Amino acid sequence: MAGRPSTRKGQGAERPGESEIIFRYFAPLASAPGARGLIDDAASLVVPAGRELVLTVDAVIEGVHFPQGEGAGAVARKALRVNLSDLAAKGAEPVGYLVMLALPDDWTPAWLTAFVAALAADQAAFGLSLYGGDTVRTPGPLAVSITAFGHVAEGRMVERGAARPGDSVFVSGSIGDAALGLKLRQDPNAAGRWGLSEDEAAFLLERYSCPRPRLELGDALVSCASAAMDVSDGLVGDLEKMCRAAGLVAHVESDRVPLCEPARKAIAAEPELLATILTGGDDYEILAAVSEPKRSLFAEKAARAGIAVAEIGSFSSGAPGVSVAGPDGKPMSFARTSHAHF
Amino acid sequence: MAGRPSTRKGQGAERPGESEIIFRYFAPLASAPGARGLIDDAASLVVPAGRELVLTVDAVIEGVHFPQGEGAGAVARKALRVNLSDLAAKGAEPVGYLVMLALPDDWTPAWLTAFVAALAADQAAFGLSLYGGDTVRTPGPLAVSITAFGHVAEGRMVERGAARPGDSVFVSGSIGDAALGLKLRQDPNAAGRWGLSEDEAAFLLERYSCPRPRLELGDALVSCASAAMDVSDGLVGDLEKMCRAAGLVAHVESDRVPLCEPARKAIAAEPELLATILTGGDDYEILAAVSEPKRSLFAEKAARAGIAVAEIGSFSSGAPGVSVAGPDGKPMSFARTSHAHF
Repeated sequence: MAGRPSTRKGQGAERPGESEIIFRYFAPLASAPGARGLIDDAASLVVPAGRELVLTVDAVIEGVHFPQGEGAGAVARKALRVNLSDLAAKGAEPVGYLVMLALPDDWTPAWLTAFVAALAADQAAFGLSLYGGDTVRTPGPLAVSITAFGHVAEGRMVERGAARPGDSVFVSGSIGDAALGLKLRQDPNAAGRWGLSEDEAAFLLERYSCPRPRLELGDALVSCASAAMDVSDGLVGDLEKMCRAAGLVAHVESDRVPLCEPARKAIAAEPELLATILTGGDDYEILAAVSEPKRSLFAEKAARAGIAVAEIGSFSSGAPGVSVAGPDGKPMSFARTSHAHF
Repeated sequence: MAGRPSTRKGQGAERPGESEIIFRYFAPLASAPGARGLIDDAASLVVPAGRELVLTVDAVIEGVHFPQGEGAGAVARKALRVNLSDLAAKGAEPVGYLVMLALPDDWTPAWLTAFVAALAADQAAFGLSLYGGDTVRTPGPLAVSITAFGHVAEGRMVERGAARPGDSVFVSGSIGDAALGLKLRQDPNAAGRWGLSEDEAAFLLERYSCPRPRLELGDALVSCASAAMDVSDGLVGDLEKMCRAAGLVAHVESDRVPLCEPARKAIAAEPELLATILTGGDDYEILAAVSEPKRSLFAEKAARAGIAVAEIGSFSSGAPGVSVAGPDGKPMSFARTSHAHF
């Protein structure tokens, strides 16, 4: 990644070239010794004895995964945290990440400063180092692809497909907040119709723009979960994926799905929003399968970690799929069970 | 990455959705057990005892790093091999990779089939497995970002900045082929002017479109090199980077820079091409600093690995930089010392 600092003219302002971008903006994020200050071709990492590496990659594209004109900090946080959420679901302890940043021609140093500041704050919050990257020019939209890695006790990565019949379905936090937050962005009048205070609307908007990877659940998941995944494309659709991977059916009661107070108000005003909540994306909560003997220990460890978890149903043998009992006890049907960006 | 197979209409043809793309195209590449057939949120990897992980990321964008309309196989090979070249320069043994593929709206199943087939062939050739990925839609140009990883004996990653005064400068293979190949693509008449046979022109074109990561040099580098990097942006510019990282000056004799026969013919016809050869990009050869006592062992190990290496100069104390003696023995000057895509 290294090179000679240089500048070039662009958009009427003096802007740094690739080498200068690395030295000035990204090198300060490379805090781990193995990252070598980003002056080498590659980084190195010693994985502690008895641990195995866990790796994931996710990209976000302007106009596809986040709205055009989204703030630099929000882009950085979303790009990093969606990856950390995957590590969280596997019970892994995060260590670092590599970032590919494709900058459109109209990028500004101020934008890059804010992007890097948000990464720096998240690194500090989550105990990470940057380990490498590639900054490229694109004639297309802004794109950020992050590879995140961490480790877990050898052989103990929590798998998606290992739920067993009789396991309970647990979910962390509250569901649907981000989907409602996205609706608020698209229709600011909705806050009035739903009877939300300013703080309540702000909470939902924040839940959309700033995922909170549930890394605190690592110990609870590794100790107690048969299987887990993160909820990124919608609760019902993602639970369907867990079911297909395990060859099981899940029965869920919508009344037991944890909702925040603003979401309850929104449903009271517009009951059809329940489907949005159950199938909208961007929750970044954790779905876990937990066997009967481990239910109370799981809840206890989660509570000790400061993360609310709710038991919303159970897995059983049957044709893979999800059945959701609505507020009236009857099976709900959905136009679609998850949100797809592709 | 998992999900329900689905299809959607596009460009008049039935095309698979993201989940189907993963299952049908990418899952067969996930040969390592830790890749879990790409049905999980993340992959796992046990790094062998006594080894440390080596990680790198590089992206290629259509119209920036490769010409518009480049064949799918060439895109796949370039995206993967530029990363393997970084691992090669560090003496690392490659293990696997993750791929972020941003597909423009007009993608076709035939394109994706050819892209995946090229990755499959390279995996077999280099002993790799796919460990994960993300396929996203983009309103912009085709983009591929690959994170490659491997391992090296703990503490033995060959660094870029550790050259010492008195070390020789070695370079592998032949230099400038890719830069001449790019010229041939842009100006097909050049082959005639340079007096190249069809085979010779094809050789240069292939050297541009298909990097050959010098992974065979791993043992020679780890055993004998003080420092190394891959030549991706031009020999002189990349050697400058090595010099700055070490705080040394390098003296190089242009007559000792290894050239292939077609390149010799091109220079004979147009002597000014020597500068193109010394500063053009995409060589993907290895620059190494080797101390006096290890020179013959390095050359011997390289020969045994089937890779030609040439001693082209030496490092010494002085203001960081590179001085190149031209064919007349006088210092050459260059309009620019490397090729920058940014």
